[in-house]
Amino acid sequence: MTKNPLLVPEIREYLSKKDKKAIREFCKSTHPGLVAEFISPLSLEEIWQILKDIDPDIRAEIFSHLDLELQIKLTETLSRKELAQLISEMSPDDRVDLLKKLPEQIKDALLPAIAQAEREDIRKLSSYPEGCAGAVMTSDYATLPPDIKAHEAIERLRHEAPDKETIYYCYVVDENRRLLGFVSLKDLILAKPDTLVKDIMNKDLIYAHISDDQEEVARMIQKYDLIALPVVDENHALVGIITYDDAMDIITQEHTEDMEKLMAITGPHESAAYMKTPAIQHFKNRLSWLIILELLGLVSGLIVERYDHILAQFTILASFMPMLADTGGNAGSQSATLVVRALALNEITPKDFFKVIFKEFKVAILLGLTLAIIVQFRVFLYQLVSPASLPYLKIGLAVSIALSLQVISSTLIGSILPLIAAKFKVDPAVVASPALTTIVDITGLLIFFSTAKIILGI
Amino acid sequence: MTKNPLLVPEIREYLSKKDKKAIREFCKSTHPGLVAEFISPLSLEEIWQILKDIDPDIRAEIFSHLDLELQIKLTETLSRKELAQLISEMSPDDRVDLLKKLPEQIKDALLPAIAQAEREDIRKLSSYPEGCAGAVMTSDYATLPPDIKAHEAIERLRHEAPDKETIYYCYVVDENRRLLGFVSLKDLILAKPDTLVKDIMNKDLIYAHISDDQEEVARMIQKYDLIALPVVDENHALVGIITYDDAMDIITQEHTEDMEKLMAITGPHESAAYMKTPAIQHFKNRLSWLIILELLGLVSGLIVERYDHILAQFTILASFMPMLADTGGNAGSQSATLVVRALALNEITPKDFFKVIFKEFKVAILLGLTLAIIVQFRVFLYQLVSPASLPYLKIGLAVSIALSLQVISSTLIGSILPLIAAKFKVDPAVVASPALTTIVDITGLLIFFSTAKIILGI
Repeated sequence: MTKNPLLVPEIREYLSKKDKKAIREFCKSTHPGLVAEFISPLSLEEIWQILKDIDPDIRAEIFSHLDLELQIKLTETLSRKELAQLISEMSPDDRVDLLKKLPEQIKDALLPAIAQAEREDIRKLSSYPEGCAGAVMTSDYATLPPDIKAHEAIERLRHEAPDKETIYYCYVVDENRRLLGFVSLKDLILAKPDTLVKDIMNKDLIYAHISDDQEEVARMIQKYDLIALPVVDENHALVGIITYDDAMDIITQEHTEDMEKLMAITGPHESAAYMKTPAIQHFKNRLSWLIILELLGLVSGLIVERYDHILAQFTILASFMPMLADTGGNAGSQSATLVVRALALNEITPKDFFKVIFKEFKVAILLGLTLAIIVQFRVFLYQLVSPASLPYLKIGLAVSIALSLQVISSTLIGSILPLIAAKFKVDPAVVASPALTTIVDITGLLIFFSTAKIILGI
Repeated sequence: MTKNPLLVPEIREYLSKKDKKAIREFCKSTHPGLVAEFISPLSLEEIWQILKDIDPDIRAEIFSHLDLELQIKLTETLSRKELAQLISEMSPDDRVDLLKKLPEQIKDALLPAIAQAEREDIRKLSSYPEGCAGAVMTSDYATLPPDIKAHEAIERLRHEAPDKETIYYCYVVDENRRLLGFVSLKDLILAKPDTLVKDIMNKDLIYAHISDDQEEVARMIQKYDLIALPVVDENHALVGIITYDDAMDIITQEHTEDMEKLMAITGPHESAAYMKTPAIQHFKNRLSWLIILELLGLVSGLIVERYDHILAQFTILASFMPMLADTGGNAGSQSATLVVRALALNEITPKDFFKVIFKEFKVAILLGLTLAIIVQFRVFLYQLVSPASLPYLKIGLAVSIALSLQVISSTLIGSILPLIAAKFKVDPAVVASPALTTIVDITGLLIFFSTAKIILGI
């Protein structure tokens, strides 16, 4: 809900009147995320006309809120000088995200036009591998020495604040930048002005290492309700912070990837990707698993072929095949989803293996029995409608037992596979539901035909 | 990563020595979330021994970080007076979450022991239906009048701060509590001390209504990188705020629910639920869909039965049935997942119906053709291995065409159903992947047998 839901005509009017003052005022008094939303539908020329004349730091903030794709398109319309200035003003993490997407030749032409300090910072932040804490942190944080007074600290922040991503947490470091603790701005405001920073700082720090996984770091921020989490290197020196807003984006991105993996879709998920990803890319992301699963499906076909003498003798059995396969796949997928999610949220670890299996086993027995009773009714209906001389009692028994065994084995397979994956540090979500469905199809058919063979004495 | 990973023995030592000072010092200088983690493995008596003697506000914070289940168990060991004091100190949103879980008789005995103002606050916050902004907001926020100076505002916050959930955003309200704007603590610190609050406040507010959906509100906080979002009633009066940490929890909870719905598991997901949910509850959450899908699977059986003369004539066709069913289910689930997620992240809306369908159609054609070519090889292998006098060319053609049509129709069904659900304001994730798999089983069998009938001329 915002006060000005439709400002585009208004902005266009400012533009046509060349009312630079009104534009500047509007951009200054409006949340940069909102301005970005309002100006996104405009043409590239119009967007730059608006951004060109406003305060450089507000410009950089609004620019950072634009979609990454739009940012890239805009950079192509700018002169090298304009682009270098814009990038210098952007926050360190946002500009590294952008630079990673720019063509090499533009980057090479651009970097010499950026000041030494920023260039060094960009080089360092770009050097961390994707997915680790170093790659998502920002180098834009406020530090304080331990031996100054609270009022001096506030005075210092007053000077530094406009440039920093957050001043709500300030990190206390020694002369070697080693992390000693942190004070919140709230602590500083509440403290007596003459108290030393080291006497009010929190010493029991929660922090991450550069190489920690981004999802774990985001979960720490969530667990401890932090505004920012400090990141240290191997010498315990402070090298960056990760802020709560980046943690939220990481969590959402990881959710999407988990969900897609669970549905056998490969490839990373960039923000706002669905419509922007071309069909050919969707095709590629989805093809590999579908081919593997098609081949697995053909293995099921081999089993059907091998037992076709049973089907020839009792064609009624063929009509239970789809139900058996589906039910196994569904029960197994449910277990896999619950276990994958519980692992992702750290509700369980691979050490809980037997506890989880025991729980799933209990659930599976209850489900298997209930579903088997229902299928008995179906066999009974067959008997009523077409009273041919078939051994209905044995057929019912075979189908019920096979269904119970299928539900129990699928449930166990669905819960064991992600636990094993987690044990070996593989992402549990690779045990995708479609893969599982296809695997339990094979086990289900084997169970079904073996049971039928034994009970019907074929 | 924390500085003191294993403090339990240390805390136990403090306890056995009755070193109240050391305990108090430890609780004060350590993040309440960490203290909660450290003391959780202790017995209820030990936990309360620690919490009893520390500052009431720190006690309430640590208590709020304990698992809700542990909180409930602890309340049972407390006297009415102790519990009333604890609840009075808790933050408004956390205590309402706890009170909602307590038995009616405890609540009724407790409320008279709580001060009038808090009681009124609890009553109001509990009155909003689950899932809306009102139910997740806290009433613990700092407000400022528009006509005071920046230094007066800071002075005022200095007095109010210890009680407020956040003082980093302060809301500016008129005499009727109508929301006029907000100032960040950063703005106040940076402003000249004599500037009026109304001259530095952000007027272009982003806010939510009490009845807004909690997920939409959380997504707004994420989109605009807010620390807190104000919530207003129908008179535009400020009634609460929702903070970034609650937004993170809402996003995680909604995601778990989406994932479970997508896998045909019903029921809400409380935090840390997997191991704590008894097997019988898991059974209930999972049974209803499995029964529905079992019945649908039996419908597939009817189709197989109806066409069993085709199978009797060409038993080879039966061996392609599992692959056809699986591939359709997999392709459809992939589309459904992509569309459900894109809808959840507001990447697309039901208005993009034709754009989405067109895109999925393109992907489906590419997938259908590629998978059909692979199945041709399989038919060719059959021909090599068992050169019976079967019309392999026609069989190959029938299977390939059926597979292509199956992939195309499943993909379209998988993308259309969630879009229709969203259009009618039904959660798109109800189009669960298992349901979809079972539906496209039926359509797939119909496509398969019809195609075979036409091409093989049976």
